[in-house]
Amino acid sequence: MTVGTLVLLRHGESEWNAKNLFTGWVDVDLNAKGEAEARRGGELLRDHDLLPDVVHTSVLRRAIRTAELALHAADRHWIAVRRSWRLNERHYGALQGKNKKETLEAYGEEQFTIWRRSYDTPPPPIEADSEWSQTDDPRYFALPPELAPRTECLKDVVERMLPYWYDSIVPDLLAGRTVLVAAHGNSLRGLVKHLDGISDEAIAKLNIPTGIPLRYDLDPQLRPITTGGSYLDPEAAKEAAAAVANQGR
Amino acid sequence: MTVGTLVLLRHGESEWNAKNLFTGWVDVDLNAKGEAEARRGGELLRDHDLLPDVVHTSVLRRAIRTAELALHAADRHWIAVRRSWRLNERHYGALQGKNKKETLEAYGEEQFTIWRRSYDTPPPPIEADSEWSQTDDPRYFALPPELAPRTECLKDVVERMLPYWYDSIVPDLLAGRTVLVAAHGNSLRGLVKHLDGISDEAIAKLNIPTGIPLRYDLDPQLRPITTGGSYLDPEAAKEAAAAVANQGR
Repeated sequence: MTVGTLVLLRHGESEWNAKNLFTGWVDVDLNAKGEAEARRGGELLRDHDLLPDVVHTSVLRRAIRTAELALHAADRHWIAVRRSWRLNERHYGALQGKNKKETLEAYGEEQFTIWRRSYDTPPPPIEADSEWSQTDDPRYFALPPELAPRTECLKDVVERMLPYWYDSIVPDLLAGRTVLVAAHGNSLRGLVKHLDGISDEAIAKLNIPTGIPLRYDLDPQLRPITTGGSYLDPEAAKEAAAAVANQGR
Repeated sequence: MTVGTLVLLRHGESEWNAKNLFTGWVDVDLNAKGEAEARRGGELLRDHDLLPDVVHTSVLRRAIRTAELALHAADRHWIAVRRSWRLNERHYGALQGKNKKETLEAYGEEQFTIWRRSYDTPPPPIEADSEWSQTDDPRYFALPPELAPRTECLKDVVERMLPYWYDSIVPDLLAGRTVLVAAHGNSLRGLVKHLDGISDEAIAKLNIPTGIPLRYDLDPQLRPITTGGSYLDPEAAKEAAAAVANQGR
């Protein structure tokens, strides 16, 4: 059996990345740099003849627009589209809308690092009446309250993302399709952790660069043939991963 | 039973509309005016609180981008997306890529009008090796040859569009959804002909303006409650319809 090819694409810079704010489920748009990153990602797909048959995105604008811009650049704008909140960025709880540098100064290096990188400690939950909560957001109306997060650690992301992987993405791969997943730093880290069998400790150090398609070829048991996959622009990926690690400093 | 609301949106000006070329299945992009029309269409949806739950598009870029731009403007970028070649523009056969004015001069007013507006006379079929045929286009690889048109009259469009209406759009309406259909002059004329029961003769005079959402409320038998539906900007629709009727002159 030939399994299809998985391609992961993390959205590029958003209006809030540039302002150094915790974003999470707040639905900010890409900025001009992020738009250019998305187009470049699509050009890489086109130049490597790695042409998606179907795209899965989160329900957040920065991932949706990344997919749209990349697919138009690759002349694959016409493929099937699937979306799920399960591919959303990690919900950052009470930190949503807060400045990263100010949060670091207010709470100290240790607490800041736990919130950003611990596997199983979420930030405090967001208040329902916060301007940065998604309490009245119609895209989540169908989500029962016990599923709608008020904060998340990476472990929570893995747990709510995996049902979508198994039920929606894997069937496309088993049908032999080239599958693009356009999503976020933490939902993609969760998926890579699962695919590569990365430990709860080691995942803290893994950063996925923005805008560079990451290709996974899989065996019939959906295990990566090459651990870690391969970036379509490995040099740029190396430089970008280093820059992400220093974010917030 | 409450049936959902149907909203039709014809894509705005494309690079080839502006050059006065027959387009059909050639996959040209919107131009800047067409992009602005799409955004304005989305603002009308938002301002009338007519918010789609699902969007159906053709597989052509100008309809896909119209949907994307309109839905981003209406803050509904996250809804479910469906696409089908059955919503494509009429295939213009051997006229694809030809200048409308030159075609009028070369073949005369009578032949030109038959090709543009007769219900059941298609233009000559396109040659498979024409640069404007879709012979090698991967988006149609799954289409068996007996389904892939080489030319179409409006009657052909109605016949290949209706199965998609019945099998894909109607179930969304019966589920109570607000359904946006972002498509083309002739696929939407075909749908309106069906909905309003317009005769083969009378449909020749019907023009659907670009970029102005057309709302249909339907009874449980999927018949329009108001024949002809209602445009969200009736004044602009009246002016635009008159301009379309003079196209090519």
